[in-house]
Amino acid sequence: MPLSQTPEDRSSAMNARIEKSEARVIKAIFPSITNHHNTLFGGEALAWMDETAFISATRFCRKPLVTVSSDRIDFKKVIPAGSLAEIIAKVIHVGNTSLKVEVNIFVEDMYRDHREHAIRGVFTFVAVGDDRQPTQVWTQES
Amino acid sequence: MPLSQTPEDRSSAMNARIEKSEARVIKAIFPSITNHHNTLFGGEALAWMDETAFISATRFCRKPLVTVSSDRIDFKKVIPAGSLAEIIAKVIHVGNTSLKVEVNIFVEDMYRDHREHAIRGVFTFVAVGDDRQPTQVWTQES
Amino acid sequence: MPLSQTPEDRSSAMNARIEKSEARVIKAIFPSITNHHNTLFGGEALAWMDETAFISATRFCRKPLVTVSSDRIDFKKVIPAGSLAEIIAKVIHVGNTSLKVEVNIFVEDMYRDHREHAIRGVFTFVAVGDDRQPTQVWTQES
Amino acid sequence: MPLSQTPEDRSSAMNARIEKSEARVIKAIFPSITNHHNTLFGGEALAWMDETAFISATRFCRKPLVTVSSDRIDFKKVIPAGSLAEIIAKVIHVGNTSLKVEVNIFVEDMYRDHREHAIRGVFTFVAVGDDRQPTQVWTQES
Amino acid sequence: MPLSQTPEDRSSAMNARIEKSEARVIKAIFPSITNHHNTLFGGEALAWMDETAFISATRFCRKPLVTVSSDRIDFKKVIPAGSLAEIIAKVIHVGNTSLKVEVNIFVEDMYRDHREHAIRGVFTFVAVGDDRQPTQVWTQES
Amino acid sequence: MPLSQTPEDRSSAMNARIEKSEARVIKAIFPSITNHHNTLFGGEALAWMDETAFISATRFCRKPLVTVSSDRIDFKKVIPAGSLAEIIAKVIHVGNTSLKVEVNIFVEDMYRDHREHAIRGVFTFVAVGDDRQPTQVWTQES
Repeated sequence: MPLSQTPEDRSSAMNARIEKSEARVIKAIFPSITNHHNTLFGGEALAWMDETAFISATRFCRKPLVTVSSDRIDFKKVIPAGSLAEIIAKVIHVGNTSLKVEVNIFVEDMYRDHREHAIRGVFTFVAVGDDRQPTQVWTQES
Repeated sequence: MPLSQTPEDRSSAMNARIEKSEARVIKAIFPSITNHHNTLFGGEALAWMDETAFISATRFCRKPLVTVSSDRIDFKKVIPAGSLAEIIAKVIHVGNTSLKVEVNIFVEDMYRDHREHAIRGVFTFVAVGDDRQPTQVWTQES
Repeated sequence: MPLSQTPEDRSSAMNARIEKSEARVIKAIFPSITNHHNTLFGGEALAWMDETAFISATRFCRKPLVTVSSDRIDFKKVIPAGSLAEIIAKVIHVGNTSLKVEVNIFVEDMYRDHREHAIRGVFTFVAVGDDRQPTQVWTQES
Repeated sequence: MPLSQTPEDRSSAMNARIEKSEARVIKAIFPSITNHHNTLFGGEALAWMDETAFISATRFCRKPLVTVSSDRIDFKKVIPAGSLAEIIAKVIHVGNTSLKVEVNIFVEDMYRDHREHAIRGVFTFVAVGDDRQPTQVWTQES
Repeated sequence: MPLSQTPEDRSSAMNARIEKSEARVIKAIFPSITNHHNTLFGGEALAWMDETAFISATRFCRKPLVTVSSDRIDFKKVIPAGSLAEIIAKVIHVGNTSLKVEVNIFVEDMYRDHREHAIRGVFTFVAVGDDRQPTQVWTQES
Repeated sequence: MPLSQTPEDRSSAMNARIEKSEARVIKAIFPSITNHHNTLFGGEALAWMDETAFISATRFCRKPLVTVSSDRIDFKKVIPAGSLAEIIAKVIHVGNTSLKVEVNIFVEDMYRDHREHAIRGVFTFVAVGDDRQPTQVWTQES
């Protein structure tokens, strides 16, 4: 039987595990990682999103994982030098052998209390066993 | 009138420009950029794809560009330490203010003549003027 | 009158601000940042601690800051390749022109639910004005 | 009998292999890799040349290689921030156990169609066997 | 009997070894390693100090070492972009299983003969054996 | 009158300045900067040599400099992971507008007192004025 997907249906054990899987990374955007427009490289943001998503997925299942895809990603706002960027990743879907993790980046002014949503993406990971074949990502302990 | 999209309809000037926009980057996959499975980080691959796509788009239009989105990206094959990875980017669609660039990564053995397709993605860029507003990416010279 | 120091005496506005100043960064310890014992460089840990403490202090006061000192730092546990490290920084003392931030690093296994305290440090920052002279870090709004 | 050296004398198999050995890398010169004159570090250019030459040599012979020397290198033009740099490497000489690879760097404006030759160098590599001793780099298949 | 600590009491063999343990590293402070105040990150300085201290300690004892603590570090002067920074590390204390290394950073103008002391720190390392347990750092050869 | 070149003929002021121009950098060769043979990349060594030579030349003349060439460089010994590498640069020739700097890399075992010469190179720099034109590198104060 496939694992249920909606928050209502999930076992409370899985929901607790999802809560604890959240991963946060905050970075100061210094000139060394910005382009000649003085904004963060899109590719750098993608690399951060994949790494933070990977950590969140690992925290959920505690198994070796490989990235299998990223869904469409929209860069809504540029992230300027001299700001802070917070990357927040959380598991949103648990399949048999795969996990989906949503990642959001928020841009925060350094010198006033102001914060906006900048980028959202969803990454899919597959758990692999010692034989590098897909393996079950979540076992409901009875 | 929007610019035409199919290769057949494009002006020969645009086609010539697209040919010249191709950008290639080859990398040796050394242990310093691999994870504990001894394969390239997915995020590193995404960062390379965005940068190479950006260069191809710049070569096409010679205007300041920002990344606006990446389409769904599938990681078909892992890229192991001790191989070569070639990233090839080429403009595939020219809109009014935006460009789409296809990027493919091929993995090549170091020590025998063998090469496979590993990752494909499409990145969209918008040309921006001095006022940071979208501007035309391509002007057909009459 | 100097600002009060104990949690009990602090104004509730300051306490609320301190709560919101917490900064978290989680990292996967891959071979690219470990030494030949396969453990994280002490210096890399120090650099992460300073950066995370700087972000926490910035979130508290929203003013330009410079590092003025780090107190004695004990490396209680080594952080091995193939684990996760979480750096958590929080303001613990507010002076007239300076802030103290406590930073802790926890090491977490990738493949089982196990987490230990590894390193603790306290960094002191001074707020500086346009003239690069120390300036007040916190103004109690009446 | 030593392998012949002039293009005319080379076997067509070797010539075909040399053609396919070309390696290209294009980079955007962002502020993070320039010095305080806003131009690319000479040392960074040297590192790129060695890596691209190494890949070209590997593509030719598919054997483990070590750098043994670089010939005199002239830096004819500085490479400014905000330009593109293309590194192109190609095998130019095949010895018994060594290969010579020519590497050229071209600097290309981002915002107009203009390209100039900037740096040329020749790197020599030796093929090594499992015993780390020099081994034959090319075997003419009869 | 514990090893003696004052320079007068140390054996001449140990003193000679301490002299030879000095490690020096000089760096040009380019924009890629400075923050948005155009000065070196405090954390980067800490990482350099730990690495240089580690090398000095290794040169003294030629044994595997781990960082166990850093004493209070004062950042007396900021290190601006466009200057040189010299890190000098030297063993100052030899215990049974541990070593203390003093590290100083000097900031030097690029374009005039002017040099000032910027940062001082003391790092403690412990020698470890194959079993990762503390082991003697210095054996007086009779 | 051109400046004299042999050590005997140089003014004592110039000789004193050359003595003080020496620049030393020591590095621990960790896996993050080695290739899949577990030895330092040739290109990384070249980048270090250029940077250390640049600092030595700057210390001599205290003027803005650009790299104009590197002479033939021989890589006599590979530098393995788990060793120390010391780069030592010193001015060896003073021309009207240019300087030659010799750079040597020594490889030193971490765990025994053993040191060997690995790489030697000579880099030429030209002093440039505000107009980016060559300018005199040394003025004999009478």
